[in-house]
Amino acid sequence: MNTDRLYLALLHFPVLNKRGDIVTTSVTNMDIHDISRAVRTYGIERFYIVTPILKQHDYVNRIIHHWQEGYGVTYNPSRGEAFQRVTVKCTLEDVVADIEQGAGRGVQTVATSAEPRLKTTSFKELKRIMARGRDAYLLVFGTGWGSATEVIDGADYLLEPIMGLTDYNHLSVRSAVAIVLDRLLGKR
Amino acid sequence: MNTDRLYLALLHFPVLNKRGDIVTTSVTNMDIHDISRAVRTYGIERFYIVTPILKQHDYVNRIIHHWQEGYGVTYNPSRGEAFQRVTVKCTLEDVVADIEQGAGRGVQTVATSAEPRLKTTSFKELKRIMARGRDAYLLVFGTGWGSATEVIDGADYLLEPIMGLTDYNHLSVRSAVAIVLDRLLGKR
Repeated sequence: MNTDRLYLALLHFPVLNKRGDIVTTSVTNMDIHDISRAVRTYGIERFYIVTPILKQHDYVNRIIHHWQEGYGVTYNPSRGEAFQRVTVKCTLEDVVADIEQGAGRGVQTVATSAEPRLKTTSFKELKRIMARGRDAYLLVFGTGWGSATEVIDGADYLLEPIMGLTDYNHLSVRSAVAIVLDRLLGKR
Repeated sequence: MNTDRLYLALLHFPVLNKRGDIVTTSVTNMDIHDISRAVRTYGIERFYIVTPILKQHDYVNRIIHHWQEGYGVTYNPSRGEAFQRVTVKCTLEDVVADIEQGAGRGVQTVATSAEPRLKTTSFKELKRIMARGRDAYLLVFGTGWGSATEVIDGADYLLEPIMGLTDYNHLSVRSAVAIVLDRLLGKR
């Protein structure tokens, strides 16, 4: 399918902590690097980092600047290339508005969760839906202990959890993003 | 297939730097965390961290201890569970010997590389080979700019590179491990 209609958001609020409280997590350097590279590899149009904390917008933009215009350009040009697709936004609503405006399309949101739930959309089904539809699709990944219930409930689709071969379901969000993109878009 | 015959090694020597020199890279905390969790999720028998630097053995063992017996146990028990499968070794030869001794089987090594090369084994083919064989299989991932040529040439198999939808092939080793395990072992 045409990946110029595919977007990814990494949510730092509202997400859960290990007790199930709604919290804001910190943006981490490693998430930005790993997810930008996966996004660039699979041709995702844009990678939104979502946090309401403006200091963290500065932090992300400083990292991007380093790899696009600072010393990083000469040290590792492929990193700057990956970072061209990164944008920071305050809320998920801002992300949706940005895509609608930029792409001139409606946006269907696809939440992800490691918890098994009753109503999920399988990878196969979502591939079919995305190929048929004319809308933009926004994959939403929660940091911390996952997206808050309001995000899951408010999404148009909830993707089935990644199952390995065991009952252990504690992948890092970086690994989960890589696997989801590969399942939806990888050549095999 | 039975994943008790599957092993993974993360190589810190001999690997390449960006100029193609053979170097020893540093062990990073994030690699240990992300790869242990993926290994546990997909039921891989053991995750070997390979570095000749003994100070780094102490570093890895301190991290493991924190999550298995220190404060980490109460903070996040699932992390300690993932770390049960981690062992540090000095060389790839030590890893192979350890598997042979522990499993009482021959070991077939499977190198990985992001570079397209003439002679590689496809994911599909490797799945078939592993299912049929009675040996143990050791997946070898290089840090830095990838495993040195001697590792690639000395391996029994070289796995085909992961291709996304673009010509960009700069995934992090953490993402690459997640995708390879999912392609070989994921339920779909």
